[in-house]
Formats: sequence, structure tokens, C-alpha cells
Amino acid sequence: MTTAGPGRPRLTKQRRPGPTAQAEILDAAAELFTTRGFASTSTRQIAEVVGVRQASLYHHFSTKDHILAALLEKTVSAPLELANRLAGRDESAAVRLYALILFDSGQLMSGRWNLGALCLLPELRTERFARFRRERQLLCVQYEALSAAVLDQLGAGDAAGRAGLPFRIVETVINERSDAETVWDTETEGSAPGGVDSPALLADAGLRVLGWTDVESLRAPSEQLLSAAAT
Amino acid sequence: MTTAGPGRPRLTKQRRPGPTAQAEILDAAAELFTTRGFASTSTRQIAEVVGVRQASLYHHFSTKDHILAALLEKTVSAPLELANRLAGRDESAAVRLYALILFDSGQLMSGRWNLGALCLLPELRTERFARFRRERQLLCVQYEALSAAVLDQLGAGDAAGRAGLPFRIVETVINERSDAETVWDTETEGSAPGGVDSPALLADAGLRVLGWTDVESLRAPSEQLLSAAAT
Repeated sequence: MTTAGPGRPRLTKQRRPGPTAQAEILDAAAELFTTRGFASTSTRQIAEVVGVRQASLYHHFSTKDHILAALLEKTVSAPLELANRLAGRDESAAVRLYALILFDSGQLMSGRWNLGALCLLPELRTERFARFRRERQLLCVQYEALSAAVLDQLGAGDAAGRAGLPFRIVETVINERSDAETVWDTETEGSAPGGVDSPALLADAGLRVLGWTDVESLRAPSEQLLSAAAT
Repeated sequence: MTTAGPGRPRLTKQRRPGPTAQAEILDAAAELFTTRGFASTSTRQIAEVVGVRQASLYHHFSTKDHILAALLEKTVSAPLELANRLAGRDESAAVRLYALILFDSGQLMSGRWNLGALCLLPELRTERFARFRRERQLLCVQYEALSAAVLDQLGAGDAAGRAGLPFRIVETVINERSDAETVWDTETEGSAPGGVDSPALLADAGLRVLGWTDVESLRAPSEQLLSAAAT
């Protein structure tokens, strides 16, 4: 361990998944933040779990806040990039919105840790997280623009703020995962709430709340769009 | 302050709203937990904010976990009581579900603090919070039963888990409030996401995700039902 400073090969076996030391630190921090809590986790504990010295950790992230910011930015960067690409496509707004929900809820469901659960931390209200808040806000704007276009097409208008709903529906993945990860005493507590675990179910819901009824017709074209937009 | 032990009138002026010392403690704790974080708040800080001695606080709540449990139980007890009363009513499942969403999202929106934001804390996964989890689960079961009945009436079935969606849609109030309470740098960050701030909008959404299109027809009867069920 004494030679595990920045840049040097460490002597312990790799304990966390990831191609770089930085990725290993992020994975360990994500587990500790989501299972023990952000405030209750120290950088010393993160370094211990990764199997590196604290000095080595500080080489990559100067504070615990920087680690949290990097983790949170990961939850919005890919969907935001897709949303920006979708904005230039010719498919209907309904197909593009359906595709964005499929992708975004899929990545929130499949990430190794339920990072979205960290979004409600009061600690995020500081300057340190301004970049994350800005990117999340840009993503939200894309959701609302697509939703407003769908409402327009349906002649529904948006006096009542309905265009904000699809973004919120994607975020329900976070609560669903949090409940699924809680160990329930099934004898006294019954099974965990919910069971909403498919991106298509949420994409259907995101379009239905706007008043779009024929959601089945959007599935195939939105999956084609995702394949096309990925390349 | 030296005479402010359990049962004795305290010498400082009341600082927090509430008819009892217990209510004042809960209000102060709710503010600190939701604005600074649960792990970052000590019982000493709560006692200071209320203006009582720590010994007096322990007279009402033996640990910080007991305070959190009491706060969380408040978020589910009223909607659960309403759901139980609605279960015995003759109105259609759609009207009853609409009424439950109106009431539940209304109370989540109007509480002085955004207590729902505490639901994702990893600390809740312990035995101490079993009662809260059980009551929340019972509430979820009522939502799912009403939703399944609406799907039945529409001949839609529930192979894809759609019946779990209305409960999740009500929970979106929590994220909405959390974003609204964040101080946004509007110059670089734009305005806060969303604007979903009406119980009727969420009740509409809860029915629409099940495939119910004529949501307008449910508003008047569900408001009548709420008045009737309240007495």
C-alpha cells in the first residue's frame, strides 16, 4: 500500500469494476453514498473500499463534493446528448419523446447504483453542483419542448402545465428502484410497492399523460430512431 | 433555560409553530432534515432551534430516528385513512382513485416542509422504520387495487404493471417541490424544472396513464366524494 501513490501501480488487487482508478473510485463512492448516505460517508472510507490511499483519491477528486458532482453528471450527460441529437431529427415529436423516455429510463434502471436517489440531497443546492443542475435543467427543457409539440399536435395546449409531466415520469424510476432495493419483511410488510420496471411502460405513460392514446404505434419507430441516432 | 425540563413551562418565547412541545420539535426537525440533511443534523441542533434543553427533547423522542419515523408516518397516515374509507364507498373506482390522488398530492404539496424527500434515505432501511414502510405499503396496495379496478373497467388488464403508476405519479410532487425550493441561478441555469403544481393535474395524469381519456368528467364527482368522505 505504501507505493500506491498517484501514477504508481498499486500492490493490492483491483477491488472495484472500472477501466481507470477514477472509475473505481466513482463506483465505490456510488455504492457508499446510495447505501449508507452521502453525509455519513468519508473520503477515507471510499479510499479503503477501493484499496487506495487517501492521497491517491485526492489526486483524482479534491473533495467528496467533486465525486458526487461527477456521479450526478453521469446520470444526465447521456440523455442530454441524445436529446440534443433528437432535436435535429425529422421524426414526429411523439416518436422522439417516446425514444428519449425509453433511453433515459432504461439507463436509470440499469445503472449499477441508484444514483438518481442522490438528486434530492439538500447538499446539492450549492454552487459546487451548478453544472449538474444546469445540465439537468437543459434536459428538462428538451423534454418540455417535445411534450409541448405533442400537445400542440393533439390540439391540447398546455394551460395546466401538462408538458412538465413526462420528465417527472422518468424520475419515478428512482423511487421504484429505491423500494426494490429495500429489504422488506414480507410477512408483516407485504411485498415492495410497485413493479414498474420496463422503459416501454414509462414511455407509454409519458405519452398517455399528454393525451396520446395510441401508444403502441410509437414503439417500433422510436426503437428504429434510437438505433439510427446512436450511430 | 435551566427550568425548561420536561413538564415545566419554559422561559424562552415559543419559536416554532405547533400546539405542543412535540409538534414544535417535529417542525424544527423537519426543517433541518429537509434543508441540511438528516445525517448532518444532531438532536442538540434541533433542541437549540426549538429553544428547549436536549433532556426535554429526549423526554418526547428517545432518538433522532424516532423523530424521523414520526415525521414520515405523518406523510402516509392521512391518505391511508382516506383510502380505507374510500374502499367502502359505492362510487366508481375511477372517481375514488381520482379523489385519493387529489387529496394525497394536495397534502404533499401543502405541508410546510417537503418531508417526502426523506423517503429515499438509505437510513430508512432499518427495523426502526418498519411501521412507516408497512403503512406506505398498505397505501400503495390501495392505489393498486383502485388502479386495477379502473383497468378492468376499461378492459385493459395489467400484464405490463400499469397499475403501479398512479402511486408513483403522486410521488412526483416530492421532486417538483425539491426543484422549486432550490435557489436557481436563473442567468446561467434558467428557471427551475417543471411547474406541475396542481393536484388536479396529477389526478388527470394518474387516470390517463391507465388509459382513461375523459378525465374532466371525474373532477366534480371526486370533489363531492372528498367532502362526503371527510365527514
